[in-house]
Amino acid sequence: MGEETIGLISGTGPQGRGLAMRFAAAGLTVLLGSRKADKAEETTKELNAKINEYFPGLSFPKIQGVENSFAIQNSTLVMLTVPFENAEDTLDSLKTDFQKGTVFVDVTVPLLFGKGDVQLIEQPSGSGSKQLRKLLPETIPFTGAFKTLPAHVLEELSLSMDCDTFVFGDSKEAKERLMGTIKRISSLRPLDVGGLSAAATVEGMTALLIRVNRKLRSREGRFQVVGVSE
Amino acid sequence: MGEETIGLISGTGPQGRGLAMRFAAAGLTVLLGSRKADKAEETTKELNAKINEYFPGLSFPKIQGVENSFAIQNSTLVMLTVPFENAEDTLDSLKTDFQKGTVFVDVTVPLLFGKGDVQLIEQPSGSGSKQLRKLLPETIPFTGAFKTLPAHVLEELSLSMDCDTFVFGDSKEAKERLMGTIKRISSLRPLDVGGLSAAATVEGMTALLIRVNRKLRSREGRFQVVGVSE
Repeated sequence: MGEETIGLISGTGPQGRGLAMRFAAAGLTVLLGSRKADKAEETTKELNAKINEYFPGLSFPKIQGVENSFAIQNSTLVMLTVPFENAEDTLDSLKTDFQKGTVFVDVTVPLLFGKGDVQLIEQPSGSGSKQLRKLLPETIPFTGAFKTLPAHVLEELSLSMDCDTFVFGDSKEAKERLMGTIKRISSLRPLDVGGLSAAATVEGMTALLIRVNRKLRSREGRFQVVGVSE
Repeated sequence: MGEETIGLISGTGPQGRGLAMRFAAAGLTVLLGSRKADKAEETTKELNAKINEYFPGLSFPKIQGVENSFAIQNSTLVMLTVPFENAEDTLDSLKTDFQKGTVFVDVTVPLLFGKGDVQLIEQPSGSGSKQLRKLLPETIPFTGAFKTLPAHVLEELSLSMDCDTFVFGDSKEAKERLMGTIKRISSLRPLDVGGLSAAATVEGMTALLIRVNRKLRSREGRFQVVGVSE
């Protein structure tokens, strides 16, 4: 397997922008998708300008703004970066665009932001990822990652990530491809936390983290596991 | 409220020993309970000897080995430190010993260790803590903490904790008392992650951590939230 191409479904939101920046800064090709190509191109122009600021003189594979379908058809790691409330509809409308050999990466968390608190929205199958798994063809391996990472820290390349991301999925091979690619991102460590059944806990961790952030007036909280090394 | 006294129900196991060491090293009075006083005294003698090694010449309130009932009746923060499989029976048999003003702290996690993997044991009410809450009188505030901390790191005072512990409970006052006391332990930070409904995620985090430990051949993995400070 050669180098992965990163596809971001509806990547114009905070999580998509952040991941686009980190993967592009790592030297990977990123296809940032949107329902409309011109919206994707607008975001892409802005992000590429920021990358050029951080790395003046270096030539990176630019982030490319494309339609969602094109991003899916031409990427090997496809990440769904919409808010969870749009995740099921978006994925359902695009599922036929997935190609054999592509790995799907779920980044979404079903959160409900209430007055002064944040809650997970209970899912019939137990987690957001399990809900989405049902929509994709069985032939496309399903993984999850990046669920506990603050979007604006991802986007701000001047901030060191200095944390871990929890990766799960039932296909060992797909997880290994994803983890190998995450390792390209500076100071971000992927940790394998098991199969799809781990999704509920990882999604719950996002809710806990947002609570901690709010109490301690931060937007930058993220998890690191200390006491383990590879 | 003056200084808390720490009671450990069935504190002769790994988690009880570890917490006894850290609280005693922090200068707090610890009543380490067991069904039989002589078993508690045996463990206590061993632990006190280790504490004296770490802090020669300093006089600490010694850990005292007592019967479980005595520990509960004479402590203000009572922690249940049995394996979860014994937790319900143990708590049920001792619930009448709790005194008004005492805060209960659940430390248990319902884990099933299988061949090569670890799973949470599904609970009818959604988490181990919710199961135990039902057994205690409503007048005793219920909290949870220390669920994700490795017992042998707690016990080994030469190891710096350097991590966070996730504290939850529906009584704000009880949480504050518990968190204030946890802060006495060197390099261990309590983080408030919400009410009793947070228990399921915190217990799931223990399972994920053990998986990470096994994959990376460690016994010392623990969580730290970076990017937040008080």
